[in-house]
Amino acid sequence: MTPDTLPAPGRTDAGTAPAPAWTFGDLTDPVQVLRALVACKSVTPVDDGALDVVQSALEALGFTCTRIASGVEGATGKDARVDNLFAVRGTSGPAFGFAGHTDVVPAGDGWSADPFGGEVRDGHIFGRGVADMKGGIAAFIAALARQPAGFPGTGRIALLITGDEEGPAVHGTLAILKWMKDNGVTLDHCLIGEPTNATEMGQEIKVGRRGSINVTITVNGTGGHVAHPHRANNPVHRAIRLAAALTAQPLDRGTPHFQPSSLQVTSIDVGNTTTNVIPSRALIRLNIRFNDLHTGASLEAWLRERCLEACEGREDFFSMETSVCGEAFLTKPERLARMIADAAELIGGQRPVYSTSGGTSDARFINTLCPTAEYGLVGRTMHQANESVAVDDLEQLTRIYDEVLKRYFEDA
Amino acid sequence: MTPDTLPAPGRTDAGTAPAPAWTFGDLTDPVQVLRALVACKSVTPVDDGALDVVQSALEALGFTCTRIASGVEGATGKDARVDNLFAVRGTSGPAFGFAGHTDVVPAGDGWSADPFGGEVRDGHIFGRGVADMKGGIAAFIAALARQPAGFPGTGRIALLITGDEEGPAVHGTLAILKWMKDNGVTLDHCLIGEPTNATEMGQEIKVGRRGSINVTITVNGTGGHVAHPHRANNPVHRAIRLAAALTAQPLDRGTPHFQPSSLQVTSIDVGNTTTNVIPSRALIRLNIRFNDLHTGASLEAWLRERCLEACEGREDFFSMETSVCGEAFLTKPERLARMIADAAELIGGQRPVYSTSGGTSDARFINTLCPTAEYGLVGRTMHQANESVAVDDLEQLTRIYDEVLKRYFEDA
Ligand SMILES: [Zn+2]
Ligand SMILES: [Zn+2]
Repeated sequence: MTPDTLPAPGRTDAGTAPAPAWTFGDLTDPVQVLRALVACKSVTPVDDGALDVVQSALEALGFTCTRIASGVEGATGKDARVDNLFAVRGTSGPAFGFAGHTDVVPAGDGWSADPFGGEVRDGHIFGRGVADMKGGIAAFIAALARQPAGFPGTGRIALLITGDEEGPAVHGTLAILKWMKDNGVTLDHCLIGEPTNATEMGQEIKVGRRGSINVTITVNGTGGHVAHPHRANNPVHRAIRLAAALTAQPLDRGTPHFQPSSLQVTSIDVGNTTTNVIPSRALIRLNIRFNDLHTGASLEAWLRERCLEACEGREDFFSMETSVCGEAFLTKPERLARMIADAAELIGGQRPVYSTSGGTSDARFINTLCPTAEYGLVGRTMHQANESVAVDDLEQLTRIYDEVLKRYFEDA
Repeated sequence: MTPDTLPAPGRTDAGTAPAPAWTFGDLTDPVQVLRALVACKSVTPVDDGALDVVQSALEALGFTCTRIASGVEGATGKDARVDNLFAVRGTSGPAFGFAGHTDVVPAGDGWSADPFGGEVRDGHIFGRGVADMKGGIAAFIAALARQPAGFPGTGRIALLITGDEEGPAVHGTLAILKWMKDNGVTLDHCLIGEPTNATEMGQEIKVGRRGSINVTITVNGTGGHVAHPHRANNPVHRAIRLAAALTAQPLDRGTPHFQPSSLQVTSIDVGNTTTNVIPSRALIRLNIRFNDLHTGASLEAWLRERCLEACEGREDFFSMETSVCGEAFLTKPERLARMIADAAELIGGQRPVYSTSGGTSDARFINTLCPTAEYGLVGRTMHQANESVAVDDLEQLTRIYDEVLKRYFEDA
């Protein structure tokens, strides 16, 4: 399907080439910026010109841009090379950041529109990433474009835009933060533009996120013949006992700022198709989204105890690999979050609540640098076919960001 | 490794060619017959001349042989073509049968002798299948060769030798039984020569076998993201509950003639390697070896109830496939079993007990035709590297079969 209004912007294909000098119709119009972004097939780790779009827009607005590539050229998977962008305007004074990602998940099937076409239909713009989170970036840019010349006088505005949030996220925001540290660049607050509203604008500001840990447990046993189970030691039965113990009780009932922690067994695998054979190994994979009652380390210790119980205290009956993707964190609702809530209420008529639910985001990394808060579009269709956002919501978000910028530097 | 005494017997390669006219050194010596059988690499469904060895020996002893091929030429797996042999001497009177299989499981690694060499070392003969159960067949032949001319006068002796017992067993003994039925051939008793002794001769006569059922249960759910488990419906957690319920309690405590039934979960598989995704399906595979308190049908009903419990009564949350490989059966210890026990005690000095433990055998099929009993060599090394039997045990078994034959037709 072809876009119904704007011609697709011209752009180069090479993500690392200098930004092309193409012009947007109007940088203050988030729809035009968003459609230029959606036209880039930037499925992680591919950039397809998405950062060029951001860079040329920001350079037109007087930002100095640095590209921060990370990962191994030609590698795939965890070490695939990705590109990132740091942009800044101003040299001193309080520093306000916008952070987000240009990469998107694959389009998948089932679309009624071109997932990279940016079609506007019935007041909605359709495309992979319009909610998560090219729409947020378009709103950053349009809000900045609406500021008067010379804004904010004293103070700095920075943008941290990564091409690896939906992927392994090891060469994305972490690489930008490392570059900032190496170059002595700081931030005072950072607003992340992820879609934080479940079904309509004005619902939630994320002021923290649950932690996340991935775990693989290998349960060992002694294989044998099903007719002689007493000569074998079935690891599947031990894995069943362990998995049942892990899922028998909720981990907790939640805390004032957090939902209950959730343990999900995502896979159990043995791979034995021989009907009369008892296997010698079973594998359990699980993920825990945990609140501030736990840490990665405390959960590792808890899991190890459950393993030992299911394995009659035998260390050799199991092995466990853990990967803590992020600890639970909470930015005590303070200036930035309050400012966003005020602006959202003023513009949209509904005051969002502070929340820590849902998935992880790069806020878990940026929060180590400065207080963060997340507020963005309605995420109902994210990662699905026919991802879309209302044009009115995009305009509302732009006006909220505009208001936050004004208040932040007025108060400063 | 080369056999240390006998030259390998000449034989044709084609399993279905007419039996070659090669001569054994001495048919009354089970070692010579066994070594000729071991030299055939008859890994199911391949015959490699094994049935030719049996056929030429039996023809030399005056048996009339019929080859009963079954399965699809060129097919692999369940429908692979296999060859079988029915041999008979005598035309009327009581009919005594010997049954066994010439096929063997693959040799595998770790041998200190040629698995098809038949080496005799330290009083043992080594080779794949010497215990399970080419040794039993060699003892059948040697025992028959020791009978006087014209034995048994009035009466019939038949041999049912299959090339598919270790495999799917659909084109083996079942094909022989069908041919017998089609041709009006009956049997009164049948002795099966499987290795029934665990560690030494004189331990066990099998007078029945547990039943066996293979089950695959697919547990359905709704996939989703681990951060939003309430929007998903994790089938792995349901599979864990189900598997825990199935393995929580023993099925029974055994019966006078049977061990307790045993349920072994042989595999659980999801195949989800994406750490943040809740899958939509989990698969449980299990096998139950069951005694005479159960039938395939009663266990299916019991499993279905457990599934419904774990699935909150929802039929659409699971599907179950079952395959009953054999019902539990018991030949009430009677004439044949008693005769074997008497002969074994007389010859070996130790009276074997009646048992129904261990794996399944083709007795489950033959038992539908006539009373069966199983008695053979020591199975300690069967299906393993360095499978071997003592030459003395092979001679003892031959003498036991010889004694059983005499008593059977004396009493008749
Ligand atoms: Zn996102
Ligand atoms: Zn066998």
